[in-house]
Amino acid sequence: MVRHMANPLTPDVLVDPVVLTRTLVDIESVSRDEKVIADCVEEVLQQTPHLTTDRLGNTVMARTDLGHDQRIVLAGHLDTVPIDNNFPSTGVDDLIYGCGTSDMKSGVALALHLAATLPDPCYDITFLFYEAEEIEAQYNGLHLVAQAHPEWLQADFAVLLEPTYGVVEAGCQGTLRAKIRTTGRRAHTARAWRGVNAIHAVGEALRRLEDYRPRTVTIDGCTYREGLNAVRISGGVAGNVVPDECTLEVNLRFAPDRTEKQALEHVHEVFAGFDVELTDSAPGAMPGLSAAPAREFLTAVGAEPAAKLGWTDVARFAALGIPALNYGPGDPLLAHAPDEHVEIGKIRDGAATLHRWLAPR
Amino acid sequence: MVRHMANPLTPDVLVDPVVLTRTLVDIESVSRDEKVIADCVEEVLQQTPHLTTDRLGNTVMARTDLGHDQRIVLAGHLDTVPIDNNFPSTGVDDLIYGCGTSDMKSGVALALHLAATLPDPCYDITFLFYEAEEIEAQYNGLHLVAQAHPEWLQADFAVLLEPTYGVVEAGCQGTLRAKIRTTGRRAHTARAWRGVNAIHAVGEALRRLEDYRPRTVTIDGCTYREGLNAVRISGGVAGNVVPDECTLEVNLRFAPDRTEKQALEHVHEVFAGFDVELTDSAPGAMPGLSAAPAREFLTAVGAEPAAKLGWTDVARFAALGIPALNYGPGDPLLAHAPDEHVEIGKIRDGAATLHRWLAPR
Repeated sequence: MVRHMANPLTPDVLVDPVVLTRTLVDIESVSRDEKVIADCVEEVLQQTPHLTTDRLGNTVMARTDLGHDQRIVLAGHLDTVPIDNNFPSTGVDDLIYGCGTSDMKSGVALALHLAATLPDPCYDITFLFYEAEEIEAQYNGLHLVAQAHPEWLQADFAVLLEPTYGVVEAGCQGTLRAKIRTTGRRAHTARAWRGVNAIHAVGEALRRLEDYRPRTVTIDGCTYREGLNAVRISGGVAGNVVPDECTLEVNLRFAPDRTEKQALEHVHEVFAGFDVELTDSAPGAMPGLSAAPAREFLTAVGAEPAAKLGWTDVARFAALGIPALNYGPGDPLLAHAPDEHVEIGKIRDGAATLHRWLAPR
Repeated sequence: MVRHMANPLTPDVLVDPVVLTRTLVDIESVSRDEKVIADCVEEVLQQTPHLTTDRLGNTVMARTDLGHDQRIVLAGHLDTVPIDNNFPSTGVDDLIYGCGTSDMKSGVALALHLAATLPDPCYDITFLFYEAEEIEAQYNGLHLVAQAHPEWLQADFAVLLEPTYGVVEAGCQGTLRAKIRTTGRRAHTARAWRGVNAIHAVGEALRRLEDYRPRTVTIDGCTYREGLNAVRISGGVAGNVVPDECTLEVNLRFAPDRTEKQALEHVHEVFAGFDVELTDSAPGAMPGLSAAPAREFLTAVGAEPAAKLGWTDVARFAALGIPALNYGPGDPLLAHAPDEHVEIGKIRDGAATLHRWLAPR
């Protein structure tokens, strides 16, 4: 997308987080095509006198420097999954429909609204509007910032405005994938006793998966429910050959009290006697709700936190030692759906909560 | 291959089955490219006064009409699998190497040698040299003859000169393939309890395969060893999704005392409770060794018959009510191998056996 328009993100638009959500949704920004939206965001923030801005690729950073003891990060990604007959936005009653309404331009709108309308927050704030969250990790704007400008991420606490439907989701589970390989010996099926069937040998691994009872772990009041699942299986040579190889891929979702190394050891234990090869893994993140800004945030929200079960960029902050959580107006179940939408009430509630938390004292 | 040569199959060559084997091997005839070899065979047989010849596609039929009460068929396919650095033939000591030496130009050589050198056999004989045995059944020369000229196949007994290493292999096992499908419900693996894992559900089917004890059945002194094997498995949506479908393909090889229908019922019994879909099946063939020409053939060979375990064109004759068996000089374990070869001694033994059996009395 090439920009041939005046910036729709005017200071007036930023005053109203609902109007701002629709305006953001109407700037197309599928992953790898975020230049226009990043230009618009950068331009309006540069006009905001209490902020210093900077940019890396299509990631825009803006910060206050008020001399507070503590600094928080408010972050949201600018990209969306591909459009699916849901662009531009449409309004129906108290709902806004469109690609990115839930995941996560309504969350980005809250941060941008705060950036423009709260010149004197009670903590210093770093705002991050980043690119390429929906695609391979190598393009992820936060990942690139962590490499090129780690100082942008330095903070005491971070809130990612990912869709949580107004609930505080703290920490995140880790994820690990591994391949279980069985081998055998090929033979013509008419003389099967000369061979060893590698698919039959997977039966025992599936039995262990069926018998597996996942842990439930509670940390800081957040309950993490683990899971171990087969996600792919393949094997076979031809319709008349006893197969000599079969591969079963499993995915472990693990509570943040396990490290990646411990998670892998666990998978090795479950599949003792099998050939287990790690495919990929990502660590979980502890909820980290004991820092002062986190406690005050929970007070402002006025509800108990829940565990985040999927993996999110929260873990990138955790890896830097920064407590982080997810809190946003979108419904996570609508993310990536053709009928993606957001409730206007949730946007207004979110803006009020953030103002309550960050207002000058 | 286009022919630009004199016919190498001269009456002189046909006198010696070993020379004839090499000559046949040196006429390239990969499946669907059998015109040249069929032309050569037809031409030399047309010069043989005691035979009547006919042709369908690249299948050549030749027959005696001596007024005998009984008629036998000697049949062999002219095609080979693709060449694999094993063309033309080479001779090493008492072995002939090359594509088709075992499967089955040495067998074809025996039939062609008999056709040329035995003007007064004790039964009437129909010789069939047919195309496209190594590929999909729709092209198979015997299949086409059964449709267009079923009278060519009418006989009291048939010998297919497929490689058996000089052993009589009688009847053949049937084969059946079926798909076992399990279904579940997709969910994100971070919330796996909302889904139902279709791959886990296959564990029970694999358990039944592991526990399966195949029958061994003896008919007319031939022992058939059945088998039920997984031949393919596949399932999975993505690395983070509980899969909602998994497909396991199994292959049953069944003794000829079961019909195809009974074989399918058996598979349904084994996988009771699962969704079983028949993929394809082919009937077995009873050994049929009680007919007079069969008994006399066994006497001439002087050895006990063995069961044929794989599926062969023998079953096509069985389907027409004609007892048939395999008997050829090639080693079946060398068929389709790059180092395919045949022992000269086996060719000479085979020719002597057939002469003993078919000589005028």
